[in-house]
Amino acid sequence: MSPPADLTNIPKKHKAAIYDKPGTLSIKVTEIDTPEPAQGEVLVRLTHSGVCHSDYGVMMNAWPALPAPTPEGQVGGHEGVGYVAKLGPGLDNSPVKVGDRVGIKWMSAVCNACIPCLSGRDASCTAGKISGYFTPGTFQQYAIAPASYVTPIPEGLDSASAAPQLCAGLTVYAALQKADVSAGQFVVIMGAGGGLGHLACSLAANGLGARVIGIDHGSKKDVANANGVEFFIDFTQTKDVAAKVMEITGGLGAHAVLVLTASNAAYGQSLTFLRFGGTAVCVGVPEGEMVPVASAAPPLFIFKELRLVGSAVGGRLQAIETLDFAARGVIKTHYKTAKLEDLAQVFQDMEDGKIQGRVVLEMH
Amino acid sequence: MSPPADLTNIPKKHKAAIYDKPGTLSIKVTEIDTPEPAQGEVLVRLTHSGVCHSDYGVMMNAWPALPAPTPEGQVGGHEGVGYVAKLGPGLDNSPVKVGDRVGIKWMSAVCNACIPCLSGRDASCTAGKISGYFTPGTFQQYAIAPASYVTPIPEGLDSASAAPQLCAGLTVYAALQKADVSAGQFVVIMGAGGGLGHLACSLAANGLGARVIGIDHGSKKDVANANGVEFFIDFTQTKDVAAKVMEITGGLGAHAVLVLTASNAAYGQSLTFLRFGGTAVCVGVPEGEMVPVASAAPPLFIFKELRLVGSAVGGRLQAIETLDFAARGVIKTHYKTAKLEDLAQVFQDMEDGKIQGRVVLEMH
Amino acid sequence: MSPPADLTNIPKKHKAAIYDKPGTLSIKVTEIDTPEPAQGEVLVRLTHSGVCHSDYGVMMNAWPALPAPTPEGQVGGHEGVGYVAKLGPGLDNSPVKVGDRVGIKWMSAVCNACIPCLSGRDASCTAGKISGYFTPGTFQQYAIAPASYVTPIPEGLDSASAAPQLCAGLTVYAALQKADVSAGQFVVIMGAGGGLGHLACSLAANGLGARVIGIDHGSKKDVANANGVEFFIDFTQTKDVAAKVMEITGGLGAHAVLVLTASNAAYGQSLTFLRFGGTAVCVGVPEGEMVPVASAAPPLFIFKELRLVGSAVGGRLQAIETLDFAARGVIKTHYKTAKLEDLAQVFQDMEDGKIQGRVVLEMH
Amino acid sequence: MSPPADLTNIPKKHKAAIYDKPGTLSIKVTEIDTPEPAQGEVLVRLTHSGVCHSDYGVMMNAWPALPAPTPEGQVGGHEGVGYVAKLGPGLDNSPVKVGDRVGIKWMSAVCNACIPCLSGRDASCTAGKISGYFTPGTFQQYAIAPASYVTPIPEGLDSASAAPQLCAGLTVYAALQKADVSAGQFVVIMGAGGGLGHLACSLAANGLGARVIGIDHGSKKDVANANGVEFFIDFTQTKDVAAKVMEITGGLGAHAVLVLTASNAAYGQSLTFLRFGGTAVCVGVPEGEMVPVASAAPPLFIFKELRLVGSAVGGRLQAIETLDFAARGVIKTHYKTAKLEDLAQVFQDMEDGKIQGRVVLEMH
Repeated sequence: MSPPADLTNIPKKHKAAIYDKPGTLSIKVTEIDTPEPAQGEVLVRLTHSGVCHSDYGVMMNAWPALPAPTPEGQVGGHEGVGYVAKLGPGLDNSPVKVGDRVGIKWMSAVCNACIPCLSGRDASCTAGKISGYFTPGTFQQYAIAPASYVTPIPEGLDSASAAPQLCAGLTVYAALQKADVSAGQFVVIMGAGGGLGHLACSLAANGLGARVIGIDHGSKKDVANANGVEFFIDFTQTKDVAAKVMEITGGLGAHAVLVLTASNAAYGQSLTFLRFGGTAVCVGVPEGEMVPVASAAPPLFIFKELRLVGSAVGGRLQAIETLDFAARGVIKTHYKTAKLEDLAQVFQDMEDGKIQGRVVLEMH
Repeated sequence: MSPPADLTNIPKKHKAAIYDKPGTLSIKVTEIDTPEPAQGEVLVRLTHSGVCHSDYGVMMNAWPALPAPTPEGQVGGHEGVGYVAKLGPGLDNSPVKVGDRVGIKWMSAVCNACIPCLSGRDASCTAGKISGYFTPGTFQQYAIAPASYVTPIPEGLDSASAAPQLCAGLTVYAALQKADVSAGQFVVIMGAGGGLGHLACSLAANGLGARVIGIDHGSKKDVANANGVEFFIDFTQTKDVAAKVMEITGGLGAHAVLVLTASNAAYGQSLTFLRFGGTAVCVGVPEGEMVPVASAAPPLFIFKELRLVGSAVGGRLQAIETLDFAARGVIKTHYKTAKLEDLAQVFQDMEDGKIQGRVVLEMH
Repeated sequence: MSPPADLTNIPKKHKAAIYDKPGTLSIKVTEIDTPEPAQGEVLVRLTHSGVCHSDYGVMMNAWPALPAPTPEGQVGGHEGVGYVAKLGPGLDNSPVKVGDRVGIKWMSAVCNACIPCLSGRDASCTAGKISGYFTPGTFQQYAIAPASYVTPIPEGLDSASAAPQLCAGLTVYAALQKADVSAGQFVVIMGAGGGLGHLACSLAANGLGARVIGIDHGSKKDVANANGVEFFIDFTQTKDVAAKVMEITGGLGAHAVLVLTASNAAYGQSLTFLRFGGTAVCVGVPEGEMVPVASAAPPLFIFKELRLVGSAVGGRLQAIETLDFAARGVIKTHYKTAKLEDLAQVFQDMEDGKIQGRVVLEMH
Repeated sequence: MSPPADLTNIPKKHKAAIYDKPGTLSIKVTEIDTPEPAQGEVLVRLTHSGVCHSDYGVMMNAWPALPAPTPEGQVGGHEGVGYVAKLGPGLDNSPVKVGDRVGIKWMSAVCNACIPCLSGRDASCTAGKISGYFTPGTFQQYAIAPASYVTPIPEGLDSASAAPQLCAGLTVYAALQKADVSAGQFVVIMGAGGGLGHLACSLAANGLGARVIGIDHGSKKDVANANGVEFFIDFTQTKDVAAKVMEITGGLGAHAVLVLTASNAAYGQSLTFLRFGGTAVCVGVPEGEMVPVASAAPPLFIFKELRLVGSAVGGRLQAIETLDFAARGVIKTHYKTAKLEDLAQVFQDMEDGKIQGRVVLEMH
């Protein structure tokens, strides 16, 4: 984990994977100009970038939530790790130095001045930039980022492992914080064996000391149990999932649930096995048509005084804390590596449902 | 506000208004046996009872949420105030004494032992009894209640004013607490001029120091403004209510909203003018068919990390605090009095939409 | 863990250890009348009672904080476990049944009606009774307790292990909650290898997911490390303890500290290694003369905006949660057993500093 | 409140009041070079500056807490209001524009990158600069400040009123937030009629909806009562202040107390009239020798589970909120104006105890 010897030897051009036809699955790997960092910015020589399903969504213009079509020629990616290769002007006293290992995440830059930023919710910055969509992302060898917003990568965490934590790990950590789960409480993870799910299980169980009930297809039982799940419910084999959760929790219901599956049915069901005052956290944005947030009957929602909370991605302090959990081995990324040139195939495999865990690109 | 001189002179029979044909609007005022307080219970000589829209719902079997039809011959009512006339056995060391002025509320008895009770959420008691539905209520001259669960009425608050606060006041206070509004923050009250609404406005503005945006029909503007509303929005005259809230709040949106109208459209709209991390509180149970909790688009809900919280009624500590606000004049009940014999007419007026504020029955 | 066969065969008299000369170390084991449970009370056939240093203080009249001298002939003890042998009147519908295994703790009865009780802080009840001081305690074969306030003992936790958790375990859990430590944060335990300390270490590390820095004499290093301590500081070998904590925590200081040693110097020192907004929790009551709560320099206290919080014992809900941690093996009591007749010797060993872990009396 | 017509006409030199002999009461008003704003900085043309007792302490080197003697020739002051006259480089997209009215406060610049900054506690920034001590302050016509850290002054609040709110108002707001007082709860303000005290009273009562008990010398009764005090206790006439507070609060004690007097006795006393779990907030730094934070007996502190919290100044978000309270008239500064040339006399009057309310300098 030392910086490359030629770190400050910055080429005029570098390799990048661009969305040449946004709206379709098409990637072009090409050489582009290496930019100069402006005031307060750094140039990061990326060594790794995770590939997230959100990148696929951005490429395909598949999110109704996003404000505009993806620009043609944009470089995607938002789970990048590398070394600071050059400082822009005005950073003489910055704590960030050339050679530092840093990460670039979904929110690549914020204003530091709006009320969300001042409230410690920089992920909701009114002027925030999304990496790989608003600004060139991490599917390339060099990227620009503000010195004040890159995330330091802790010693002892290898870069390939760190990359997906900047998005997947951070997302589940922010969601668990919103679930407000205390040690010893029951939290249900719907989609326990999935990409986000297995991280949520291990963070909840091994990080926060919660008791984890994992719900997923039976084929995911082993990965769920290996990640701290105390009670696994195979939804294909269990007639009444809510009754099962009630039984496990002594009749009261769970304290919280994280819905990590894209299905609306999951949201509805999640409200049926919570205890009084319990919290359902909605994570991630379903693609395609708009759907109701929840369709549980209001009497239950009101009599049990339930809470339904949206969670997007976390902020910069949460990112630091997530990487600390990862560096200490509390959460572990399951990934395999690929080359930048393989990106189109990775997206194809994603479309075909063939990806297990994360793919991390190496930027040789 | 001194107890009646003949307080301990307890008759064998007393006057009560009963639901003689649950499922229809039919009330029979009759004489029934005056019960003996059992272990730990007190007999309360009621002087006043508010009439709540929920009583109407119980009488009509109109709530799908309630577990069973209302028993024939049940005495309704859950906003009762009176004097303790007799102590049951085992209360020698009780702080409650004969002559104390006390209130009986929606939740008339709890177990004091379940996890909700131990968590200070007694309104969610797993064995709680609803007054006027599970147990004989407050539309009568004498009622039974547990000594440990009656609410002391503070000096200086007249009984007729106190009665509706035990339900309406408590409900809005519990809802505002769930909204988690701090002094100086913007809270929107949808239905600002209604029965719950005007209490919510004055409690939010004059009690909690919040800045209140009231939304209602223009005819309610005066009552809203008289109760602390800083910005009134007439939804019949304002094309884009959300845009107006955004403008008032400097473009960020409100911190919280209480939806006090029964309309589902209101829930959907409420999510469109909240700021990042904002909270919509759902109060009350719509009658009739089951409907989705919210139908706002999930991207908004997730990107803004909104919270949707159900709120039923508050607990006993909140009831004490609500009455303290009322005794200090922070919140005021708008009511007119009627006789117990008038109850059928009061329900008829309620059905016809003719009631302004609360009606409080006097139990002469 | 089944109740004794002769459970409902209640003798007229039973064995008890009494303080025959309060103010001195003197115990008399004798036969006393077995009492009848009054309204709402149960008679518990005790099988085990832990012996706590606070019992010693009560026996010796050593606490300036206690309101009055210990009554002559009082039965001490406040960590009792046994089976419900008889119900008093008025408990027909109580969830507590004959044969249930229950615990009696420091606070043996509360009023359920004062503001502290209604606020979920029953340990601060304005009319609370202390077991073994205000009321006959658990150093006997039968004791009286309110049905509504005994603590259910979970299946799978043996009674000897459960007994000390009712006091020692509860105390450290309540203290950790006041420290407000989140997963991944640094908490310092001063007295890490002691009776409370080793429980605090394992609960913080294995229960709450905190990173534990243990401070104690080098001889306690092994027990501390076996209980989840990540960094052990031997205060006899470390010149500058505060500097060491600062180094471990990356220069910022710890998030919280529990001071579990009776020394005032420890309080002063604890404030020097906390980070901005950090919390020092004061647990337990020093015996002997009154001393200042803290003598750290105010500038540090104010500039760093530190918090100093007193913690006595926890409430009934926290007791349930503590036993759940114990039943799941998160915290383990280190104890050895003795007979009721050995109590005087146990106190003598306590005075001589010879006790390692807890002693639990068996009430054959 | 429009900017001066010649705002962008920046002179080479400007008038400033400097500490020519730190450690003594000596001020020299002189002309100094007007600096150029560096990267990310703005030049503010100051029109007003409050004079705070902390300025006096800095001038006199009277604070043991401060890290180093005040530099000779330093310009003091930390409650400045004026107009942005010039932007430094790199601010093309900054929300701060020339002509904006802004404030400079005690903490004049922070790093935006340390854990305190990322935690929304920028007042505890590990690299924070104190205005008028580390960096040239606001007793001059032009001062430099980071664009990202100046506080916008809301429309409708005149500059002279705004200046002291940047320090005095902010300090009491931050303290009240740490006291964690809810609407309807009792808060005691010790020093209710003083400079900080009267602001704390009106903010607590009129802003937060708390019930305020003011303690002060009888001569301060009128100003206290005019600022929202519900119960005034003249400590010169009340034999047992704690008993009086207990009586007012129904025997339980107050929820919180702000100690705004420099006396150590006040801290000790404050702990005697708090209820279970109550909070005492220590504000301000006593000058002169170091003293214990508290000398209350530990039994009380622990049995009542009290909290003692240090509070310095607030952060940038709290400053914005404080000014919002001021702009809406919830808190009002009592001040008189003076000229920059009068500063030495103002400090002399301060030393002589002749100042009532704040003095605000006009920078003509």
